[in-house]
Amino acid sequence: MIEPKVLKGFKDSLPQEEFYRKYLISKIEDNLKLYGYLPIDTPTLEYKEILLGKGGGETDKQVFIFKDKGDREVGLRYDLTVPLARFIAMHENEIVFPFKRYHIAKAWRGEKPQRGRFREFYQADFDIIGIDSIESDIEIISLIYNLLKNLGIDNITIKINDRSLMHQIFKKIGISNYEKEILLILDKYYKIPEKEFIENLKNIIGDKSEEILRITKFENRENLFDFLKDRYDIYSTRLEKVIDFFKQINLQEFVTIDFTITRGLDYYTGIVFETFIKDYVELGSVCSGGRYDNLTSIFSKNKYSGIGSSIGLDRLISYLFEKNLIPKVSFCNLLIANLNPSDLGLYYKILNKMHSSQISCEIYPEATKLKKQFKYSEDKNIPFILFLGEEEKEKSILKLKNIDTGKEIVFSTIEKLIDYLKNPQNSTSL
Amino acid sequence: MIEPKVLKGFKDSLPQEEFYRKYLISKIEDNLKLYGYLPIDTPTLEYKEILLGKGGGETDKQVFIFKDKGDREVGLRYDLTVPLARFIAMHENEIVFPFKRYHIAKAWRGEKPQRGRFREFYQADFDIIGIDSIESDIEIISLIYNLLKNLGIDNITIKINDRSLMHQIFKKIGISNYEKEILLILDKYYKIPEKEFIENLKNIIGDKSEEILRITKFENRENLFDFLKDRYDIYSTRLEKVIDFFKQINLQEFVTIDFTITRGLDYYTGIVFETFIKDYVELGSVCSGGRYDNLTSIFSKNKYSGIGSSIGLDRLISYLFEKNLIPKVSFCNLLIANLNPSDLGLYYKILNKMHSSQISCEIYPEATKLKKQFKYSEDKNIPFILFLGEEEKEKSILKLKNIDTGKEIVFSTIEKLIDYLKNPQNSTSL
Repeated sequence: MIEPKVLKGFKDSLPQEEFYRKYLISKIEDNLKLYGYLPIDTPTLEYKEILLGKGGGETDKQVFIFKDKGDREVGLRYDLTVPLARFIAMHENEIVFPFKRYHIAKAWRGEKPQRGRFREFYQADFDIIGIDSIESDIEIISLIYNLLKNLGIDNITIKINDRSLMHQIFKKIGISNYEKEILLILDKYYKIPEKEFIENLKNIIGDKSEEILRITKFENRENLFDFLKDRYDIYSTRLEKVIDFFKQINLQEFVTIDFTITRGLDYYTGIVFETFIKDYVELGSVCSGGRYDNLTSIFSKNKYSGIGSSIGLDRLISYLFEKNLIPKVSFCNLLIANLNPSDLGLYYKILNKMHSSQISCEIYPEATKLKKQFKYSEDKNIPFILFLGEEEKEKSILKLKNIDTGKEIVFSTIEKLIDYLKNPQNSTSL
Repeated sequence: MIEPKVLKGFKDSLPQEEFYRKYLISKIEDNLKLYGYLPIDTPTLEYKEILLGKGGGETDKQVFIFKDKGDREVGLRYDLTVPLARFIAMHENEIVFPFKRYHIAKAWRGEKPQRGRFREFYQADFDIIGIDSIESDIEIISLIYNLLKNLGIDNITIKINDRSLMHQIFKKIGISNYEKEILLILDKYYKIPEKEFIENLKNIIGDKSEEILRITKFENRENLFDFLKDRYDIYSTRLEKVIDFFKQINLQEFVTIDFTITRGLDYYTGIVFETFIKDYVELGSVCSGGRYDNLTSIFSKNKYSGIGSSIGLDRLISYLFEKNLIPKVSFCNLLIANLNPSDLGLYYKILNKMHSSQISCEIYPEATKLKKQFKYSEDKNIPFILFLGEEEKEKSILKLKNIDTGKEIVFSTIEKLIDYLKNPQNSTSL
C-alpha cells in the first residue's frame, strides 16, 4: 500500500473550490472577450535557457529545473511573461498587432510555502503588445475597473504611477544613479514605518530625500503637476493625461496617482499600477501591471512595447467568497428518485426534457433505500427530489419534494414542473 | 540573444486553436454540469511513487520524473486516473458518494513524437465512483451520446463489451489462463488482417480460437445472447440489460455490442466501450472507458468501484473543425475607429454601451492612419468599423462600415446600432 499524499506546497482542489475558480475565470474571460482579447497557451515545460536567460537572480533558485530523458535542461514556467516574450518572438509573423492576448494558466515556483501561497498557482495575464500609446494604457486600466465592477466589486482604487516620469524627476534632482534603489524603497512605503522609510531614503540620497518625500505626499493631481512644472520644468506627462481622462469620464474616485507604486524590480518602463479594494486593503493588490518597452529583448532584435496586467486570482476568490459575491448554487437542481429499475426509461424521458431546458438533473444511480437517496440529495445540496412511484404513475402526476422545507408540490405536466424549476424564486440553480 | 524555440513534442497554441479548444471544453463542461458532475483539480506534480506505484511498465519509461530541490523524487502526471485514485483515497471523508466528478487538464508523456501526438496533451475524464450499478453504466453511455449530439455529431456508434462476461466465457471454454493475451489480441481485431488475427489466437489457444471467432461474428444481440445461453449457460448479463435499455429508448442504432472492444491492458473489469464517428472511423475512438472494481487498490483498503470515460479532445477538435461544426466567429464584432484622440471619452461611451449589450467591441488604440485601422480590422476578422468623425458628430449620427462588402449604414441612435449588430443576420459574433 502506498500512502496517498501530495507534495509540500501543492494541493488538491475539491469541487467547491474548483467551482469557484471556474466561475471567476469564466467571468474574467467574458470581460476580456468583450474587449477583443484573444486566448493563447504555451507549453508547461520550456528550455531552461528560455526561462532563465542569462539568469542568476532570486527567481532562478525557485524554478523547477531538471534534465529530461533526452538530457535536455528543461523547467516548469514560473510566470506567463517569459513564455509570452518567447511566443511573440517565434510567432511575430502569425500575429495581428497590436496583439491583445490573455493567458490564464498555472505556473510553478519552489518558494518556501507560506500561508495562502503555494508552489503551484494560477496566473491570469492580459496584455496589449506592439503599441506604445496612451489609449492602450487607458484601455488596460478601464478594463480592470469594469472587470471588477462586473464581479460585484465597485469599491476599488487603482493607484497609478509612471516609471518614465520618475526617471525624469530623479534626473532633475540629480539622483539618477540610485534609481533602482529608490524605486525599491518607494515600493515599501506602505509596508514599513514612515520613519524607517525616510531613513532608508536618507541613507542613499541624503538631503535629497526631502524632494522625494514631498512628491509622495501630494493628495490631488493639480498640486502635484503644478509642482512638477514649477520645480522641475516637467510638462504634460502621460500620467497626467491618463489621470485627466479618468476625471473626464467621472472615474477620478477610482483612479488615483500614487508615487510609491513602482513595481519594484520588474521590467516596467512606463505606467505602472496596483489595484486595492477599499474595505480590504490588507489583501494587497488584486490586479497589477504596467508598460514595458522591450518585451522580447533577449529573444529578438525587434522591439515590442506593450502594457500588461496580472490578476490575483486567489486573492479575488477569497474576497468574493468572504463577501458572498459568488452566487450560491447547488451543483445540481433536481434528483429523480430511483424507485423501480424498470422505470429507468421513464426517468430518462424526464431527465432529457430537464436537460433540454438547461435544468441540471440526475437520476439516483441505484434503486436503493429512499433514505440513502435523500441523504445524497442533502449532502450534494440538490434542492428538489422528484417522485414517480406507482401512485404518481397511475394518476399521471409528478410529485416534487423540497429538501429544505419538506414541502411537496404536485404537477400535472412536465412543462409545469419545468416552469416551476426555472422560476428563480424556486430554484437556486445557475 | 537566445533562440526562441519550444521543446520537441510540445507546441504553442495560437488564438484560433486555443479558441476552438476553449469552445469544446466549455461545451463538454455544460453537458457534464447538466448531469450533476462536479469539477476537481489535482497538482501537476506528484510523488514518483504515487504516479508509478510499484511500476516497471511501458508507461513508466515515458513519465517525466526528476528530483526537486528538496531531493524528492517527483513527476508530471501522465494521466488523470492515478491522481483521481490518490484523490479519492485522501478525501474519502470529504466527498459525497456516488461521486460524479470531471477533470479536464493537461498530462505529459515523453513518447516518441508522432504526427498529431504530443508530449503535452489534454485529458477530459468523467467518472461515477463508489457504486456498481447498471444505472451508472447506462448514465455514462447515455451522457456520451447526448454530449456528442449536442456538439452536432449524431452519426456515432458506441461499441460496448463486458470484460466480466468475457471472463465467464473464457472460463467455460477453459482458456482462463490466457485471458490477458486473448483480450489483447481481440483489441487488435480491426487493426490487423483477419488471417493474422486468427493466427494470433491459434498460437495461444489452438482449436478453441474457433469459439472466440464465432462470438466476434454475431451481428445482432438476440442471436448472440441465445448462443451464450445455449452453449455456455450464461443468462441475463449486465451487457444484455444495458443493450436492452438502449433498445427500449430507441437508441439501438447508436449502441451496439462488439466483443473485440476490450481496452487492452487497462484496469477495467466490467462494461468497456469505445465511440466511433460513422463517417470517420479512421479517427479512432473519440470517447472510451469502462467499469473498474477497485480504483484505489494501491492507496486504500476501501474498495471503490466505478465507471469512467475519457474524451479524445484533440480528435474531436480536428473532426469538428473539418466538418465546420465549430461556429465561425470573429473574436471581436466592432472596431471603433480612432479618429481624434480628444474624442476618446465619446468612444468609451459607445464601447461601454456595446459591452453592456454583450457585443464585443474595441477602440483602435491609436489615432493613426485609417488604412492601418482597416488592416487591423481585416486581419483580426472584425466585421464592422464605426466612424465618429466631425461630420457624424455634427449630425449626431453613427456611421458603420461592413468590412467585407464595403457597405455603409447610418444610424441615428446607439440603440438602433446595437439592434442591428445583435441581429444574427448582420453579426457573426458568438
